[in-house]
Amino acid sequence: MTDKPLGGFFTLSDLEAAASKKVAGPAWAYVQGGAGEEQTMKANREAFNRRTLRPRVLVDVETLDLSTTILHEKVSAPFYISPKAYQGLLHPDGELATARAASAANVLAVFSTISSRSLEEIAQAAPAGPRWFQLYLQPEFSTTQSLIDRAENAGYTALVLTVDAPVFGNRDGTVQAGFNASSIPLGNGTQVFPPTHPTLQGQHYHTRGEASSTWGILDRLRKMTRLPLLVKGILTGEDARKAVDHGVDGVIVSNHGGRQLDQAQASLDALPEVLGEVGSEVDVYLDSGVRRGSDVLIALALGAKAVGLGRLVLWSLAAGGVEGVARMLTLLKEDLATIMALTGRRTITEVDSTLLGKPNR
Amino acid sequence: MTDKPLGGFFTLSDLEAAASKKVAGPAWAYVQGGAGEEQTMKANREAFNRRTLRPRVLVDVETLDLSTTILHEKVSAPFYISPKAYQGLLHPDGELATARAASAANVLAVFSTISSRSLEEIAQAAPAGPRWFQLYLQPEFSTTQSLIDRAENAGYTALVLTVDAPVFGNRDGTVQAGFNASSIPLGNGTQVFPPTHPTLQGQHYHTRGEASSTWGILDRLRKMTRLPLLVKGILTGEDARKAVDHGVDGVIVSNHGGRQLDQAQASLDALPEVLGEVGSEVDVYLDSGVRRGSDVLIALALGAKAVGLGRLVLWSLAAGGVEGVARMLTLLKEDLATIMALTGRRTITEVDSTLLGKPNR
Amino acid sequence: MTDKPLGGFFTLSDLEAAASKKVAGPAWAYVQGGAGEEQTMKANREAFNRRTLRPRVLVDVETLDLSTTILHEKVSAPFYISPKAYQGLLHPDGELATARAASAANVLAVFSTISSRSLEEIAQAAPAGPRWFQLYLQPEFSTTQSLIDRAENAGYTALVLTVDAPVFGNRDGTVQAGFNASSIPLGNGTQVFPPTHPTLQGQHYHTRGEASSTWGILDRLRKMTRLPLLVKGILTGEDARKAVDHGVDGVIVSNHGGRQLDQAQASLDALPEVLGEVGSEVDVYLDSGVRRGSDVLIALALGAKAVGLGRLVLWSLAAGGVEGVARMLTLLKEDLATIMALTGRRTITEVDSTLLGKPNR
Amino acid sequence: MTDKPLGGFFTLSDLEAAASKKVAGPAWAYVQGGAGEEQTMKANREAFNRRTLRPRVLVDVETLDLSTTILHEKVSAPFYISPKAYQGLLHPDGELATARAASAANVLAVFSTISSRSLEEIAQAAPAGPRWFQLYLQPEFSTTQSLIDRAENAGYTALVLTVDAPVFGNRDGTVQAGFNASSIPLGNGTQVFPPTHPTLQGQHYHTRGEASSTWGILDRLRKMTRLPLLVKGILTGEDARKAVDHGVDGVIVSNHGGRQLDQAQASLDALPEVLGEVGSEVDVYLDSGVRRGSDVLIALALGAKAVGLGRLVLWSLAAGGVEGVARMLTLLKEDLATIMALTGRRTITEVDSTLLGKPNR
Repeated sequence: MTDKPLGGFFTLSDLEAAASKKVAGPAWAYVQGGAGEEQTMKANREAFNRRTLRPRVLVDVETLDLSTTILHEKVSAPFYISPKAYQGLLHPDGELATARAASAANVLAVFSTISSRSLEEIAQAAPAGPRWFQLYLQPEFSTTQSLIDRAENAGYTALVLTVDAPVFGNRDGTVQAGFNASSIPLGNGTQVFPPTHPTLQGQHYHTRGEASSTWGILDRLRKMTRLPLLVKGILTGEDARKAVDHGVDGVIVSNHGGRQLDQAQASLDALPEVLGEVGSEVDVYLDSGVRRGSDVLIALALGAKAVGLGRLVLWSLAAGGVEGVARMLTLLKEDLATIMALTGRRTITEVDSTLLGKPNR
Repeated sequence: MTDKPLGGFFTLSDLEAAASKKVAGPAWAYVQGGAGEEQTMKANREAFNRRTLRPRVLVDVETLDLSTTILHEKVSAPFYISPKAYQGLLHPDGELATARAASAANVLAVFSTISSRSLEEIAQAAPAGPRWFQLYLQPEFSTTQSLIDRAENAGYTALVLTVDAPVFGNRDGTVQAGFNASSIPLGNGTQVFPPTHPTLQGQHYHTRGEASSTWGILDRLRKMTRLPLLVKGILTGEDARKAVDHGVDGVIVSNHGGRQLDQAQASLDALPEVLGEVGSEVDVYLDSGVRRGSDVLIALALGAKAVGLGRLVLWSLAAGGVEGVARMLTLLKEDLATIMALTGRRTITEVDSTLLGKPNR
Repeated sequence: MTDKPLGGFFTLSDLEAAASKKVAGPAWAYVQGGAGEEQTMKANREAFNRRTLRPRVLVDVETLDLSTTILHEKVSAPFYISPKAYQGLLHPDGELATARAASAANVLAVFSTISSRSLEEIAQAAPAGPRWFQLYLQPEFSTTQSLIDRAENAGYTALVLTVDAPVFGNRDGTVQAGFNASSIPLGNGTQVFPPTHPTLQGQHYHTRGEASSTWGILDRLRKMTRLPLLVKGILTGEDARKAVDHGVDGVIVSNHGGRQLDQAQASLDALPEVLGEVGSEVDVYLDSGVRRGSDVLIALALGAKAVGLGRLVLWSLAAGGVEGVARMLTLLKEDLATIMALTGRRTITEVDSTLLGKPNR
Repeated sequence: MTDKPLGGFFTLSDLEAAASKKVAGPAWAYVQGGAGEEQTMKANREAFNRRTLRPRVLVDVETLDLSTTILHEKVSAPFYISPKAYQGLLHPDGELATARAASAANVLAVFSTISSRSLEEIAQAAPAGPRWFQLYLQPEFSTTQSLIDRAENAGYTALVLTVDAPVFGNRDGTVQAGFNASSIPLGNGTQVFPPTHPTLQGQHYHTRGEASSTWGILDRLRKMTRLPLLVKGILTGEDARKAVDHGVDGVIVSNHGGRQLDQAQASLDALPEVLGEVGSEVDVYLDSGVRRGSDVLIALALGAKAVGLGRLVLWSLAAGGVEGVARMLTLLKEDLATIMALTGRRTITEVDSTLLGKPNR
């Protein structure tokens, strides 16, 4: 086939390959790499693959409504764009392209503390949103405070505190490829820093000071902002319980796409434990490994409120900038609509656990 | 080996490769492709592969009788040709070749609404049958009515309503290969249409109107025809129960060869649930993944009345037209006869669940 | 490494590759091929691979005795050479080489009805034995009678009736390679025939007449010979029970190396069922998939009296004739001795089920 | 990436490949090879890979202390260098490089009886230690006595008796590559010998005389030395019980990196059984398959006191001599520190079974 498709790819299946032709070595290694031996990265996909869906037939599926509500905001789909750092590595427009495509599609987008563009530029690129701000605690607490204030002022409607990165995961592929995080310009200012590795000092390893944060940080953040507060990076019922006891408005079950703790459980496998502990109290979200409409529906059938998209966003941004991201969102919606029709579900509220069959393996 | 074998292939094992040499890009992508990540397509094969058969020895197997009765018609084997669309893509003779080969072998063949040749031409090509007609509900109900009348008049002896395709499954491979269903001429007239994808209109996705059909359609069809009525594409006990309560004469457990809902269960894995619900009331058939005589026997041992052949038919049609299909049917019968001899079963009625051992995985 | 090793290979691991360089297309396809999709052939290996052995340490293993007794004959190892047909395809000396190597090593060898050399030539090549004769029932019962008489006269000390081949298994690889059994000269005379495929006659498939044999054949054979009688090719408790009730002296659990019924259980997986039914009454043997000393010990730990070697024999015969077979037997003994030392067993009688740990998968 | 990294490799993931470029055929076959079909070698990795770790968040992990105590000696990490033979094959400095790197990092190193350098040279190369001596029983007991005396005099602080090698495992790869142990000069003198294969003498296989040792040898060794005594190569509760009853100070669960008994259980899978039997009485260690910080933590979470490094040491020695080993130890510590931070554990004593989730497969 020789026609050049819109956004640089034809389907969700050829997206990764399309992206790989556009991105140079170290940046591609960053996009693709997982921690350690990448067991968790593989487990994320296997967890979806082994689940089965039960088709239901002769249901009236003439009209399908994919929309849902996320923290009181109406969105067009039960998926959102996860906060991904350094989007400028993948396309000159970086987060601006992502924001424009998401907003145009009325899909929620979450932007990272360590974005290539400033949070204000991102907001201006797509003023209508919906958008949330992801927060990494900073070495200077005043920087953290400033980021929150700026996000509020720029119209971000929730804060997502990432808690699974007190240190940066060991991603050998990025090291081998020569990826150097410290050399990448960040949009939110020179006082803003990504997580780092532990370093040996005398007999002990030391981490950045903010790695000393404990659950009290949630109480402190609560008092600093009027925005809803979510935590991202929870994989256990115990931690979900603590988060809810400290007043969060939502929990995101995530293993950071397999990029932080290798041999952590697949997010999907951890979801039932978290839901069992706090699912009746707050909304629970999931990311890590989502690639298809069937994945979205599986997570929702297990009880997730919505699911986050990671590598799909980076791949589509690399493949075609704003057009690429827009195309990916369209394809994913079509895929989800098809799966809903084939399982006899007209709306997101009709998605429940009766959708799921016995796992294949 | 240089001799050209009859029908273009030597065995069931080299049939797929033989076919691949005869069919061009988009058509081959259509033949081979499954929905989504093709998990269900793979699961169909794995479900057969992990089952085990118990050989029984020193049974008198001098004479083997493979014949059986399907809805009161005597046929030469407990397998039939599933309805496969667009057979003209694979060979100029299209469905005519399939019909001739099947009829000559006294094997039941089911022909699709969206055949390349008209149902009347197919009937004329092999008047003796046996043949059934597969029905896709049409946007205009009068078209549906007309198809049924024509099938009755042309001597088709049962109707098979496909219920797992209110919309067309997402098959990325066909999109990437440039396969375009709307450009393919259909034999049954310009008013006849294949399923389509959901399309976005405003905030909602819309499907073709006939996707609004619910179980009442079975009652309506019942009144329109004197032919036995079966439903194809059931994977759950709940839907099987509804179908039987609405008066069908048979249920075909099928996931459309993995082409519709990816991550649906393997047909073979879904068979026991359906049999448990309705097996004592109607005959239950199975398709999706059948490639060998051992597969046939496994499905029958679990309780299926007969099994449908899909890709085997397309491959053999592509490899050698009528000779190819005839050769495939002969090889499959020989394979089945061999397996029956090795498991000590002389007739199809002697096939029961004691044939099955503990699954391998 | 450039030195040419004795027998054409260095270890059990490079034996198959060494053989593949010596044997032409159709014969190699015959050696390697299994029935159908070769699921059972693979299952035979997986069944051994997933078992675990428990090492025991600080046991006095200075002297290791591998000898055992098989039907009152003292042999040097608890393994024997299974009856493999057509050995002349692999080496000009055919069964003579195998007989000489086995006899020199005091390893029991079983020779096939459809050997390339006559049973008398084989006996003369290695008069000391020990050797058994494998029997395929023949179209003319007088031929069967004659074979038995000849075997008795030539000093074979037991008869092994193969019961899993009333018809020849479907081995697509041999067909594709052009292997033609009917063109291969047999050593035991022109009245002797191998099993054949079922063939269509009218509405039914027919097999060779001797496929009509039932359990009574054992009673008949019993009366015809003073030799011990074993049956080979049992995979179920039910058939083992029948065999013992009809007076056999031993049962060989076998799936013919995966060459007859595809999707039959691995022999090793079927062994416990057979032992549970008849293990207290007769000796039970096993073949199919044995490649290493660890395999031998695993089968013995489960309760087998001895295990048969199939492809190991053909490979080593092809690789180096009598030297090849001798080398293989030596290597397998050394491997077994090593495994016995590492599991703390000095003699075959010390091998019991405490050797086995929890399976790996 | 063109910069040459310190020690010859960038990460733990590219270490094996870096080593493979430095070592010639037979030596590399020795490093890489396992026994038999290498099932146990693979099982060792799979056992780690299928375990999952539970991340814990918002724990103060600003300071991480990896140090622990092994038999009253303070060391910088809960891992140690396992005794690996013939290190001179990998680097001219052989064990001297390993000793220097380990001692500089305050990591315990165990040196083999069959080292390329003498135990005294090794001690002089890194006088501070910590170091232990691994003992193979020798054909002449006086040689064994002498080795113990020399180790005591040279400041080794414990003796590790290897009990899983009464004979040398069957490692076909080394045979095929022409590896010849008897031609390799040993540092500890011409009276010192490695284990050998059983050899046929008459009807029986015979091993070296010291393979006749039984549990009483532990009592004998006990009386001969003031040093703590450990046994290495235990995989069963029964043998662990006997070892403790004979007064050992520690048990090392090991399958010799998959090099001795193929189809032995993975060390990690055998660990719980051994701990259940003797874990409350002596410290239990583990080796075989450790490659990453996550592996270390998994073994500790199950109850191991510390874990041994095998191929990691050989690879890093080959890749870069003393710098290579030092680099590997640094990377493994950083990896471990990262994993501890991500699981919320500040010290080794905080590592317990709550770290472990449900296994993945």
